[in-house]
Amino acid sequence: MLPDHLPDHSVGVVTSQTVTIEQPLKLACGVVLPTHELVYETYGELNGERNNAVLICHALSGDHHAAGYYETEDRPGWWDHYIGPGKPIDTNHFFVVCLNNIGSCFGSTGPMSINAETGEPWGASFPSLRARDWVESQKLLMEYLSIECWAAVIGGSLGGMQAMRWSLEHPNKLLNAVVIASSMKLTAQNIAFNEIARRAIKSDPDFCNGSYLQEQKAPLRGLALARMIGHVTYLSDELMGQKFGRELRIGDLVDRNADPVEFQVESYLNYQGDKFSDSFDANSYILITKMLDYFDLSREYDNDPVAAFKQARCNFLVMSFSSDWRFAPQRSREITDALLAAGKSVSYVEIESDKGHDAFLLPNDRYEQALKNYLARVAQQLTGDAR
Amino acid sequence: MLPDHLPDHSVGVVTSQTVTIEQPLKLACGVVLPTHELVYETYGELNGERNNAVLICHALSGDHHAAGYYETEDRPGWWDHYIGPGKPIDTNHFFVVCLNNIGSCFGSTGPMSINAETGEPWGASFPSLRARDWVESQKLLMEYLSIECWAAVIGGSLGGMQAMRWSLEHPNKLLNAVVIASSMKLTAQNIAFNEIARRAIKSDPDFCNGSYLQEQKAPLRGLALARMIGHVTYLSDELMGQKFGRELRIGDLVDRNADPVEFQVESYLNYQGDKFSDSFDANSYILITKMLDYFDLSREYDNDPVAAFKQARCNFLVMSFSSDWRFAPQRSREITDALLAAGKSVSYVEIESDKGHDAFLLPNDRYEQALKNYLARVAQQLTGDAR
Repeated sequence: MLPDHLPDHSVGVVTSQTVTIEQPLKLACGVVLPTHELVYETYGELNGERNNAVLICHALSGDHHAAGYYETEDRPGWWDHYIGPGKPIDTNHFFVVCLNNIGSCFGSTGPMSINAETGEPWGASFPSLRARDWVESQKLLMEYLSIECWAAVIGGSLGGMQAMRWSLEHPNKLLNAVVIASSMKLTAQNIAFNEIARRAIKSDPDFCNGSYLQEQKAPLRGLALARMIGHVTYLSDELMGQKFGRELRIGDLVDRNADPVEFQVESYLNYQGDKFSDSFDANSYILITKMLDYFDLSREYDNDPVAAFKQARCNFLVMSFSSDWRFAPQRSREITDALLAAGKSVSYVEIESDKGHDAFLLPNDRYEQALKNYLARVAQQLTGDAR
Repeated sequence: MLPDHLPDHSVGVVTSQTVTIEQPLKLACGVVLPTHELVYETYGELNGERNNAVLICHALSGDHHAAGYYETEDRPGWWDHYIGPGKPIDTNHFFVVCLNNIGSCFGSTGPMSINAETGEPWGASFPSLRARDWVESQKLLMEYLSIECWAAVIGGSLGGMQAMRWSLEHPNKLLNAVVIASSMKLTAQNIAFNEIARRAIKSDPDFCNGSYLQEQKAPLRGLALARMIGHVTYLSDELMGQKFGRELRIGDLVDRNADPVEFQVESYLNYQGDKFSDSFDANSYILITKMLDYFDLSREYDNDPVAAFKQARCNFLVMSFSSDWRFAPQRSREITDALLAAGKSVSYVEIESDKGHDAFLLPNDRYEQALKNYLARVAQQLTGDAR
């Protein structure tokens, strides 16, 4: 249920909208989606010049509900701390758009949707996706909303990859790219964790080779394991130490005691895994982790990120978090170095945090301030106030 | 098959021996094993004073075959690089003993053994174990071999925990403890990875609540996943980058190609997982990862490692590897600091290596030299040559 009193600076009660994009979308793999559905939300007002729109790009498990409250829920959207009137992504100035991307499982066309050609859910046969496919789908939504140019495209993790891809594919369609806790490509270790997660899902007999919906089953055990693996890598060792240490939830470890023992961290992780597997689709998880693995910013630029970023015309804000070992600060420094070498305008901020990769979703004063300052300047420039 | 020419400095062809320990072993959990079997190997000769024996303690997945060759195999024991005539653990000077510990699955009493009370395999009902139980079982083997005092107890990872436990429980029974890539207790992150591995095993329907032997099944998929998770954490990010990078084994990532793609690192990890699940027992994996989680050197010393180490009378060599993030150098520094504060003689060596936790098993010049120098002095002291 909606809280009795909404907090200050909230965008308030929001509703999502659904649009059927009627233009064909040709995917990088060659498959064409003749039409596709997108679920999205907007916060703030589009101004008369239609130049104050900001696109929020979600990561692996994200959705279109980035801010505000639904009538039926007591928890706000996943980035509510950063989006709202007076917040860093300030809805007094910006018209904020966040969509659920194709291939995901919160209403937009994806593996759970019916494939019109077969009358069955797509399931594991949903076409392979790349980050650029999300960008092209987002561009069709942009056209539907009659937006000519984003004031900024903003995202963390896989969201940052989309922001970078926007800057190369449609350099005239955005003024700023905000790339948070991201990378130009995954490391072998990143890919390894993703592959273990996928294998966990596929090993579950209820996966049924991806046709579990038709079989009225769901690989809940496999998906829970996949999430547990991901979750550990999103947290830092320090944070887990502070949060759980070696505290026991059940039993004790004195001698002469054969009763079961459970550490708090075990209970927490098992809970996180189970919760996630009730809300996410296993085929989407496989599809989107592969999208992460396949992303390589400069593959088609002869593996030269400087050549790649020479395509860009926007300004960049790059941010990273000290304890993020999934997408370490070094990855963001590489982005920054390539942008500088390509002669682009880039601000780089490395934030002290013990919260690991998850830090990009969580409150942090310096992160908040840096994002706010950067976007305040963007807002000023839109109204011609900048000097 | 045995290689045509054995390498120089090999201990040569070895055979394992099996002993039934007839004394009751009272485990920390309170259960008593009336008898138990141990499989072990020895290399080198026990001298007339019977004071040159060295105990090698294996880690999670290790066994008694630490050095030399079996007639039927072309690969030597798991620590062959470090054990042999002229090698750091020099069989010209030492009588080296390595056993498979109880609860494991290579011949010693464990979950695959028949429980005499039921006539069925122990399976998941094998009693919960602590590192101290391994130490007590090793002490019974020591008595069987008529060894009064170890010249050294040596081990990496969980092996190092056993060496530390020896120094506290039987301070007069060892002259030196060599503690490599170890820790006084696991961090929450360590425990988290172990719990995910256990859940992977238990999620496999072929686990049958641990009674898979009776059902003539084996949770191969779950155990493979468990090993894959472990394996990634034993390697460093750098090493995985050097070894695999983003190389593809199958397919390519150009546009307009919907064919499957597989990275080398995926193929490697899947292979490692499958190989392991064919050779290890799932109940043993659960049992021994819990032993790791439960280990806490100073729990019964009011959580004060200095008070704990005051029990010890031996000298210590502590070693760690720079890129080991599972048992980071910081853990070894904590051991060293506690030993110094307890007034013990300790040498600490931090080795530069890009090989992660696995480094303790792999060739490395400085590691080799440091171990060799330390043990050469131990050998001299035995014969009274030290000055």
